[in-house]
Amino acid sequence: MKKLRYAVIGTGALGGFYGGMLAHAGNDVHFLFHSDYDYVRENGLKVDSVIGDFHLNKINAYNSTAQMPPCDVIFVCLKTNNNKMLAQILPPLLHEKTCVILIQNGLHIESNLAADFPNLSIAGGMAFICSNKIGKGHIAHLDYGKLTVGSYQGENEALLKQVCCDLEAANVPAGYSDNLEESRWKKLVWNIPYNGMCVVLNTTTERLMQNKETYDLIRDLMLEVIGAANACGVGIEEGFAKDMLDSTLRMKPYAPSMKLDYDFKRPLEIEAIYSEPLSAACDAGFDMPKVAMLEQQLHFIQNGYC
Amino acid sequence: MKKLRYAVIGTGALGGFYGGMLAHAGNDVHFLFHSDYDYVRENGLKVDSVIGDFHLNKINAYNSTAQMPPCDVIFVCLKTNNNKMLAQILPPLLHEKTCVILIQNGLHIESNLAADFPNLSIAGGMAFICSNKIGKGHIAHLDYGKLTVGSYQGENEALLKQVCCDLEAANVPAGYSDNLEESRWKKLVWNIPYNGMCVVLNTTTERLMQNKETYDLIRDLMLEVIGAANACGVGIEEGFAKDMLDSTLRMKPYAPSMKLDYDFKRPLEIEAIYSEPLSAACDAGFDMPKVAMLEQQLHFIQNGYC
Repeated sequence: MKKLRYAVIGTGALGGFYGGMLAHAGNDVHFLFHSDYDYVRENGLKVDSVIGDFHLNKINAYNSTAQMPPCDVIFVCLKTNNNKMLAQILPPLLHEKTCVILIQNGLHIESNLAADFPNLSIAGGMAFICSNKIGKGHIAHLDYGKLTVGSYQGENEALLKQVCCDLEAANVPAGYSDNLEESRWKKLVWNIPYNGMCVVLNTTTERLMQNKETYDLIRDLMLEVIGAANACGVGIEEGFAKDMLDSTLRMKPYAPSMKLDYDFKRPLEIEAIYSEPLSAACDAGFDMPKVAMLEQQLHFIQNGYC
Repeated sequence: MKKLRYAVIGTGALGGFYGGMLAHAGNDVHFLFHSDYDYVRENGLKVDSVIGDFHLNKINAYNSTAQMPPCDVIFVCLKTNNNKMLAQILPPLLHEKTCVILIQNGLHIESNLAADFPNLSIAGGMAFICSNKIGKGHIAHLDYGKLTVGSYQGENEALLKQVCCDLEAANVPAGYSDNLEESRWKKLVWNIPYNGMCVVLNTTTERLMQNKETYDLIRDLMLEVIGAANACGVGIEEGFAKDMLDSTLRMKPYAPSMKLDYDFKRPLEIEAIYSEPLSAACDAGFDMPKVAMLEQQLHFIQNGYC
């Protein structure tokens, strides 16, 4: 099978780790940088990982997709707030069979992209990973790491499975989901409680779990998300909440991506992680009062009133 | 009619203002102090009020009720967290007809006192006021000020009406409520949203009102409290929420008492303001999910995890 050529759009906590691991294993990977471009051209990309540190002295770094070659697989690792830029960013990278994998949080992001690219092969990627960008061209991978991919549109199952093989060969756990919608909702079961609560209470997942009342609240939020998924026709058992709680208890103290966005005064991904699921639940006649309250509190913070 | 002798237990934002206004108007008022006792013996009590500043050079100040005379009316203005001390504090002040008025926030505080003093004349006081203790023996009265009193047990209607007359004569708006339970719930319609939200989002009432999402959330919380009151057999119209929102919009920017407790690292009155109403609503089969979430978040903060 022909070796795949990869592009990484947004080389941060996720793109830097997954793209970095693939490049480190000898794959052909092309990275788009924004503010770190000059630094990385000089110094390369550094990944401090629990499974082994490495430093890529020379990588294919770009600051515009116009200079990049067409690729077989594109990992989109932007913040969803920037997805409106994809209509301009993607075209130079696309050939007839290019598959775009949105490794992002939230709901309905694939459908938004499909509206602009109705014939594009599109997939979603759910990263269950603790990793942060801690400096220019510098990623810290703290825990976990599995990437699950699932198709949204196009005949891309074989390609996505090859991507999983490449990842596994690069020492990254990967899996193919034949139900992207379910995988997206399952990811939300974790993302909705922990991201928002870490911001509103300015804390870490560990502290939320140590305190009885917030442990209960995290579980309440998870059960609302599971209820909403079921109302939307996506079957998730209530016991999945317990699995997520347990795996978070085993997790190293971690600041989720929205907490880092908050700390660094970047926009929060409220729309994709909260508003879209709330709107889907509402359309299905299901009420998520605590999730709605979390969204309301996050808007207050986002609007700079804190 | 015989002039009433007053005791003020807890001379802070409320006790200092109401007791100070009564003393300033020539009433016989005896104040219990805790940490400010020595300062006030030297310097008296200072009230900066929107309706006129004054300074009481010499007041009847005590640091123990054992030295205080029996009184006709006792204003209890402690934090509810300290109400367990009342069983020891009150006895020296009581004669056969003494009426204790709990000028405090929350629900079921009168019944807790009645359990220790089954034959005591007990009333509740609801203060709709913006006032803060800003220094030793120093109260700032910023806005509003009405005190509503209502009987809980004992034949005290005439006495309470005389208290209202004394307050009015001292330039303090006062009213007698013949339905304490309703007045308590109405007070909660304001207290539950603003106290907790100002703490969780570390902000002021004004900022909560300026931001659309938190304005909506405040209204959601108010409607949950009104729903709970109705489920508990206390009729409050939904339109009362609008009245409270409107009067808060007209209010000067204000940090509610729980926000000051938070700022000064004092215990928060979670039990009386949140847990008791939630428990009453639960017993009546009514769900208050957003109020419950606010309580959960406050416990996290109270437990020192922030």
